[in-house]
Amino acid sequence: MIGQSGIAIRSITRADPTALAQLAQFGVATVHEAMGRSGLLASYMRPIYPGAKVCGTAVTIFAHPGDNWMLHVAAELLQPGDVAILGTSAENTDGMFGELLATSFRARGARGLIIDAGCRDTAELHAMKFPVWSKAVHSKGTVKATVGSVNTPIVCAGALVNPGDVVIGDDDGVVIVPKLRAAAVAAAAAAREAKEMATRKRLAAGELGLDLYGMREPLAKAGLKYFSDETALQQEPRK
Amino acid sequence: MIGQSGIAIRSITRADPTALAQLAQFGVATVHEAMGRSGLLASYMRPIYPGAKVCGTAVTIFAHPGDNWMLHVAAELLQPGDVAILGTSAENTDGMFGELLATSFRARGARGLIIDAGCRDTAELHAMKFPVWSKAVHSKGTVKATVGSVNTPIVCAGALVNPGDVVIGDDDGVVIVPKLRAAAVAAAAAAREAKEMATRKRLAAGELGLDLYGMREPLAKAGLKYFSDETALQQEPRK
Amino acid sequence: MIGQSGIAIRSITRADPTALAQLAQFGVATVHEAMGRSGLLASYMRPIYPGAKVCGTAVTIFAHPGDNWMLHVAAELLQPGDVAILGTSAENTDGMFGELLATSFRARGARGLIIDAGCRDTAELHAMKFPVWSKAVHSKGTVKATVGSVNTPIVCAGALVNPGDVVIGDDDGVVIVPKLRAAAVAAAAAAREAKEMATRKRLAAGELGLDLYGMREPLAKAGLKYFSDETALQQEPRK
Amino acid sequence: MIGQSGIAIRSITRADPTALAQLAQFGVATVHEAMGRSGLLASYMRPIYPGAKVCGTAVTIFAHPGDNWMLHVAAELLQPGDVAILGTSAENTDGMFGELLATSFRARGARGLIIDAGCRDTAELHAMKFPVWSKAVHSKGTVKATVGSVNTPIVCAGALVNPGDVVIGDDDGVVIVPKLRAAAVAAAAAAREAKEMATRKRLAAGELGLDLYGMREPLAKAGLKYFSDETALQQEPRK
Amino acid sequence: MIGQSGIAIRSITRADPTALAQLAQFGVATVHEAMGRSGLLASYMRPIYPGAKVCGTAVTIFAHPGDNWMLHVAAELLQPGDVAILGTSAENTDGMFGELLATSFRARGARGLIIDAGCRDTAELHAMKFPVWSKAVHSKGTVKATVGSVNTPIVCAGALVNPGDVVIGDDDGVVIVPKLRAAAVAAAAAAREAKEMATRKRLAAGELGLDLYGMREPLAKAGLKYFSDETALQQEPRK
Amino acid sequence: MIGQSGIAIRSITRADPTALAQLAQFGVATVHEAMGRSGLLASYMRPIYPGAKVCGTAVTIFAHPGDNWMLHVAAELLQPGDVAILGTSAENTDGMFGELLATSFRARGARGLIIDAGCRDTAELHAMKFPVWSKAVHSKGTVKATVGSVNTPIVCAGALVNPGDVVIGDDDGVVIVPKLRAAAVAAAAAAREAKEMATRKRLAAGELGLDLYGMREPLAKAGLKYFSDETALQQEPRK
Repeated sequence: MIGQSGIAIRSITRADPTALAQLAQFGVATVHEAMGRSGLLASYMRPIYPGAKVCGTAVTIFAHPGDNWMLHVAAELLQPGDVAILGTSAENTDGMFGELLATSFRARGARGLIIDAGCRDTAELHAMKFPVWSKAVHSKGTVKATVGSVNTPIVCAGALVNPGDVVIGDDDGVVIVPKLRAAAVAAAAAAREAKEMATRKRLAAGELGLDLYGMREPLAKAGLKYFSDETALQQEPRK
Repeated sequence: MIGQSGIAIRSITRADPTALAQLAQFGVATVHEAMGRSGLLASYMRPIYPGAKVCGTAVTIFAHPGDNWMLHVAAELLQPGDVAILGTSAENTDGMFGELLATSFRARGARGLIIDAGCRDTAELHAMKFPVWSKAVHSKGTVKATVGSVNTPIVCAGALVNPGDVVIGDDDGVVIVPKLRAAAVAAAAAAREAKEMATRKRLAAGELGLDLYGMREPLAKAGLKYFSDETALQQEPRK
Repeated sequence: MIGQSGIAIRSITRADPTALAQLAQFGVATVHEAMGRSGLLASYMRPIYPGAKVCGTAVTIFAHPGDNWMLHVAAELLQPGDVAILGTSAENTDGMFGELLATSFRARGARGLIIDAGCRDTAELHAMKFPVWSKAVHSKGTVKATVGSVNTPIVCAGALVNPGDVVIGDDDGVVIVPKLRAAAVAAAAAAREAKEMATRKRLAAGELGLDLYGMREPLAKAGLKYFSDETALQQEPRK
Repeated sequence: MIGQSGIAIRSITRADPTALAQLAQFGVATVHEAMGRSGLLASYMRPIYPGAKVCGTAVTIFAHPGDNWMLHVAAELLQPGDVAILGTSAENTDGMFGELLATSFRARGARGLIIDAGCRDTAELHAMKFPVWSKAVHSKGTVKATVGSVNTPIVCAGALVNPGDVVIGDDDGVVIVPKLRAAAVAAAAAAREAKEMATRKRLAAGELGLDLYGMREPLAKAGLKYFSDETALQQEPRK
Repeated sequence: MIGQSGIAIRSITRADPTALAQLAQFGVATVHEAMGRSGLLASYMRPIYPGAKVCGTAVTIFAHPGDNWMLHVAAELLQPGDVAILGTSAENTDGMFGELLATSFRARGARGLIIDAGCRDTAELHAMKFPVWSKAVHSKGTVKATVGSVNTPIVCAGALVNPGDVVIGDDDGVVIVPKLRAAAVAAAAAAREAKEMATRKRLAAGELGLDLYGMREPLAKAGLKYFSDETALQQEPRK
Repeated sequence: MIGQSGIAIRSITRADPTALAQLAQFGVATVHEAMGRSGLLASYMRPIYPGAKVCGTAVTIFAHPGDNWMLHVAAELLQPGDVAILGTSAENTDGMFGELLATSFRARGARGLIIDAGCRDTAELHAMKFPVWSKAVHSKGTVKATVGSVNTPIVCAGALVNPGDVVIGDDDGVVIVPKLRAAAVAAAAAAREAKEMATRKRLAAGELGLDLYGMREPLAKAGLKYFSDETALQQEPRK
């Protein structure tokens, strides 16, 4: 159904609100690790201003290059707490989204936008504190000529997103948590953070990761050899 | 005459100052739309600091890769209110411009620089509030060996620029307004902004673009179908 | 020896501390020019926050894509005043470094990191004021499976770095000063800055680089011709 | 389940063999159009030699950057007529696949490989006529350290691929046909080709698309104006 | 007038046919040098098959991303010996052109296409020997929704093209010769080739460019020093 | 000494001729593996025609962007069996090398060129069978204004190259073998090829890498689980 045009789903199953609230406390890197190192969008997706942060429910948009019609369709289907997320049928950097649409999205209760295309009016969006992660900042205007879909599964910046999934964005990028895994991932993220708290204290005190994580033996087994000084480099090269 | 080297034009026809002052009030996206969605530089042209803004008259520079000689030639020909804009004969990211040239440009009354190459001393330029849009930030120094031209038509980041055109830059990028169209574009931009003011108010109140712009019927005609819930996605796929 | 895995050198020869302290006063562009326009890393290496600045001694790390094991090995070998600098055996943008490793590095006295790969936890690193220059910001986690080397010569973003070299980073990028040249380069940079101080004053007063640098005659010799106005462009094109 | 590691599915549902055989007769562009302009991989996926062509059933592989372990796991699960298709958990161009693996794949009956990473031994693969579409050609070797999955849904070069889908590749790139749509798409592609045959004949005879497709009226409505000659360009610019 | 939509010019001034025939004998590099190193399109414009070669008169097309409507408008205005050349209003890689349009273009007498976007049906175009230079090969289909222009000045891959200019393409890329300069450039190219013929013979006989071009003295003046062997590299570094 | 301009070394130490002759028998991927997965140039370095192959001794060239003067200096220092290899002081794609220089290089006995910049006259070079690996094909001409160096250590496409090292190029890219390691690497490559010969035979017979390399147990330990069919994917997701 991915990539099919002409479909708008009015009512979607959303992730558990408690799990969503818990996930909102963690950063993208932590959640990604808690999911077994999965769920990330590509690194070209960047926030339009530093410090942008969002956590909410995915309302998915499938659009065609240079055409922002479906963002207007999505506006009606957004509910408070939602994050709009847009994938395209071909690579595009046109400025599909700006301050007028953000005004409309905010009025509907949306928390932000993830767009695998361009964004414009970035100064105004920053002033409004409406967070957007995009592939490009570009003023190029768009047409309203071809229909796509809303609330069907999409691929956005290399990640599969189903409507109702949890979307988390911060300065490090964007991660998607499948709605069925939200509670489990929130628990794993909490456990990870608790463990890191202790680790952080020991590292700050000067303890080495080599000892803390027990790396010395595996490193030696994997072939790491220590030399006292650079004269080692002048020796006969090893294969 | 594009791409010819060895020419420096002392006196150029500039855009109407009233039109230029009017255009200075609008953002890049608005002006681009008011021109019928034309005039933009490529999206890789980015301000060296957030909040940079410029509007002025183009003094055009044609330079060769790794050679910033013509920026010195341009300095003499810059007048108060001008914006220097540089295109190259081949792709280049060397740091052709820095704080010393900015000091000179400012002393001549220039308002900023658009450079389809690299820029350096960005911290100092930010401190001076001398706005620059560039393709890259790079410290690579340049030579003074090959002449280009000043005040001939150039291509900069995919856009044609004639000397005397209006150059507008902000966080969303850069747009060029041909000097003969400056007054008409300023009027169109003002009309657009007035109209958007009303639209913004209605969108902020929760009204939908779908209704405001009368999109429901054209969307249905173009094939958009609404489904109450996700069970639609489990049905037999439509072609 | 470049590109050999399995080597960790404990003790390296460092640049002269006086020269290093002198070099810390200059920007990347100035030092690069003082070295005869050499030593720069590629322009894709960007600071993770504006205003980042570092000057210190290179502890070099050679790592494999998607594997941050050697950063832990490096932590033990870092001394106060060092800057870790990492090259990889193949292009990679995974987030090899984050806030926990920065905590460890800081506890060892390290001043920052240059990494030809990805970085994550950028908001936390900014809050800690731990400066990092990286190729990408990405949350992608890494494994600890393959050994590389520490304190062997590396290539980082197109530049050769020997352990003990001086590493300088600022908003304009990163430059490497070979340790044996540190004092000479510091002297040359100081001379350049002194000269530029005088130049800056004259340019700010409106004097032209054309006159200050004696460019008018060489420009004429190189074929630059001045025309009073744009009618020159309508004439028969010159070859 | 996308992005989960540690899963290998032995038996998958494949597309209908008749539909698959029909689809093998059409090019990528035709099939993509017949699917309503969907299903394409990104344009960076290129065949390693001109004239490469494949059509078969997807055996999907999810791998980590710089690690080709799962290609060996996949080899066992490939059946005659299958095409292996690999997505990664982060951007990577390492040479995960070469002539030895191709020998193994061919022995299992596989028809080719689509890999969102690098490929090597391209001269040997060309000589063997084993078709591969890849993101890069690079000799960089890989490790066998982290498990991914085989026959779970993957994202490859921006497209969702389910095990058992139809994969078609030619000089124009790669398209994925969901297995449930295979018969319908084959029929639509056949209809499209039949129609194009007639169109081609008329165009070859000099008839214009403008007339054949009835475009003159819509173009005029959309604002296209004809002018007899270039003097139109000297007139007052229109908004 | 660049970037204005809605204009189609029926009759354009073409370059002198004799000059065009002469220019057809030279390669892109030679013509570019004969124009004083100008006129090149960006290096990302590549022929879709090796050995492609074209020389003809530019019929210019201005199109919007993902919309190939204007190629049909252009078909009617193409005359025998013309080369269609297309620029876009924003970056785009969609497959705007394929075998059906090529059939139509050939029926009108067109010699080839230069397109700052994508091309598809490349195997068929190769079989037809219809030469195309494009930014990408991609199957992505396009719509016919927004009008652009035909035979107005355009920017294509960084170069300004006026209708009627000479377009030359080969394995090295594409160069544009302004129609008024065609005869002068053809003469300069012929002179250059004659001179290179003699040079080639002397170089083939083992004579050095250093002597042939009298470079030894300027090199010494510019600071080149010869050393008998590598011990020079161990000496105290020079500033 | 890397990056220093103004040095030309007449006589360099070359790799052992026997080792060089042995290395000429192996492909780039094999040699790279035999060196412990090191020595590769970046994947953007591509042969200008398929089937290009070279093995020879590095004569290194350090050049500035847009300036090919040092290629003429290198011509004199090339000896039969040498391969010229050029690194630049900043990113550049200008066409620094063409058919005339190739004629001169061939007359001196050079076997090919590796250039981290652009190349032109590619059709002529193909016809001459003069192999070149480059970053770009571009006709852009260059100047002769700034001296670089010949036969000093350089960085080319991310790899360190010392004069006299062995350079091997084929369809898979380029690898550098340090001259002191040439014999050892040749031996390791031969051993690798012998071992692969046996492996190839067994894989061709349908034996699996899983068994041949004993991967089943390590895969299970690393967490890989087999499921009989896709119903596994509908189960409760595992962390």
